[in-house]
Amino acid sequence: MSREHITVVKIGGNVVDNPEALSRFIENFVKLGGRKILVHGGGKEATRLSGALGIETVMIDGRRVTDRQTLDVVTMVYAGLVNKRIVAMLQEAGCNAIGLSGADGNAIKAVRRQANPVDYGFVGDINPADVNTDLIVSMIDSGLCPVFCAITHDGNGTLLNCNADSVASALAVAISKSNTVDLIYCFEKKGVLTDVDNPSSVISNINRDSYTKLLDIGIISKGMMPKLVNALAAVDFGVNSVTIKHADDLIKNAGTTISL
Amino acid sequence: MSREHITVVKIGGNVVDNPEALSRFIENFVKLGGRKILVHGGGKEATRLSGALGIETVMIDGRRVTDRQTLDVVTMVYAGLVNKRIVAMLQEAGCNAIGLSGADGNAIKAVRRQANPVDYGFVGDINPADVNTDLIVSMIDSGLCPVFCAITHDGNGTLLNCNADSVASALAVAISKSNTVDLIYCFEKKGVLTDVDNPSSVISNINRDSYTKLLDIGIISKGMMPKLVNALAAVDFGVNSVTIKHADDLIKNAGTTISL
Repeated sequence: MSREHITVVKIGGNVVDNPEALSRFIENFVKLGGRKILVHGGGKEATRLSGALGIETVMIDGRRVTDRQTLDVVTMVYAGLVNKRIVAMLQEAGCNAIGLSGADGNAIKAVRRQANPVDYGFVGDINPADVNTDLIVSMIDSGLCPVFCAITHDGNGTLLNCNADSVASALAVAISKSNTVDLIYCFEKKGVLTDVDNPSSVISNINRDSYTKLLDIGIISKGMMPKLVNALAAVDFGVNSVTIKHADDLIKNAGTTISL
Repeated sequence: MSREHITVVKIGGNVVDNPEALSRFIENFVKLGGRKILVHGGGKEATRLSGALGIETVMIDGRRVTDRQTLDVVTMVYAGLVNKRIVAMLQEAGCNAIGLSGADGNAIKAVRRQANPVDYGFVGDINPADVNTDLIVSMIDSGLCPVFCAITHDGNGTLLNCNADSVASALAVAISKSNTVDLIYCFEKKGVLTDVDNPSSVISNINRDSYTKLLDIGIISKGMMPKLVNALAAVDFGVNSVTIKHADDLIKNAGTTISL
């Protein structure tokens, strides 16, 4: 079977939380040619709902500590409100979107993170081997566009809150076994910058060699490092390329592309 | 192509709201042989969440008036919390469930109800012709069990709150074009009773003739009439049979079966 091309696009809170940015993104995502998957984060809506319900939001290293009540909140917001809102918008725009959590069709199974050293509660990590590639690719083959939230399950009846970046990279790595996959992380900057105060100082291409050099000369900011480490790992595991760009640049030749 | 058999099962609040009843139901639903679809209502969880958020719940003739805020609440509860909870439980029990709203894959399109004489807000009605039978049957053919909440869309980007009984009957009627479909409504009684105070007075079979006779002699209670009218209409439109039974009796030969 010949390898086909699939683009995995991830959007986060800066798009999901902003109706105008989301509309612009939807328009561009529909224009993006070919076979594709969308992964979305949840943004501030979950924090807002927790607040309204008197549930304290606890974040450690940028991850939401997810007790039973918070799990209900993120399931409602990510798998319900945000996912179905995006699916309805894509349907309106002529893209045959289907919203999925990892539990649906056992699309993505996760493992609950150990309570040591930090107990994050119902938070899961994903091994790409636990992605149901057959289901996802056959949906795409039949003309559907899977739209994933970052809620998955453990296969034993428990839902788990995962990191949307990790969902996107696990999907990309898993699907790379049988397809040529490009992974695009949309965020609020134009790409990896040589000068954080200069938005036009985007580094177009990074590979493992140039990454090491950029690290040595202190160009890569602390906030950017985990993104780049994950991107390099995804490329090592078979993803064709990973691009980090502004959401508004989705269909433009822009941003920073990480490849071998 | 030969006609295959599909069972459509609908559960409401009396099952969804009660963890023990839901566990028993899941166990029985998995045992129910053959190809199947589950449709679930939302129960009291949406009313509870509305209350906690200070949103007034207004019901007219048993239908929830759905303003913008209430649409967000029911989307969170039905399409998020309840749907994914049921899917995760079914997955645990070995049933390859996939949770769907009507927006997903354009599975069910609805039409917003006219604001006259009563403005229900974002409430939709479904024409069985707007059910995406090909998608649903191909999912079932591939071994999946669709699990529908009663949130659909209008195709123009707006989600709509529908009645779960109507979702179940629209699905059953639509799929009857190419399959032999039995529709089962699970509720809190043993079936249609000749004596509401005697749970063992279940009428096993009703057809249009006996329905008219039961009406004439005043056996059918006011609360039961809409259910029976809908059931007879479904049978008229090609559904093989409609059975009204207690959720605990799902896999028992019990309840009231309506057929031609």
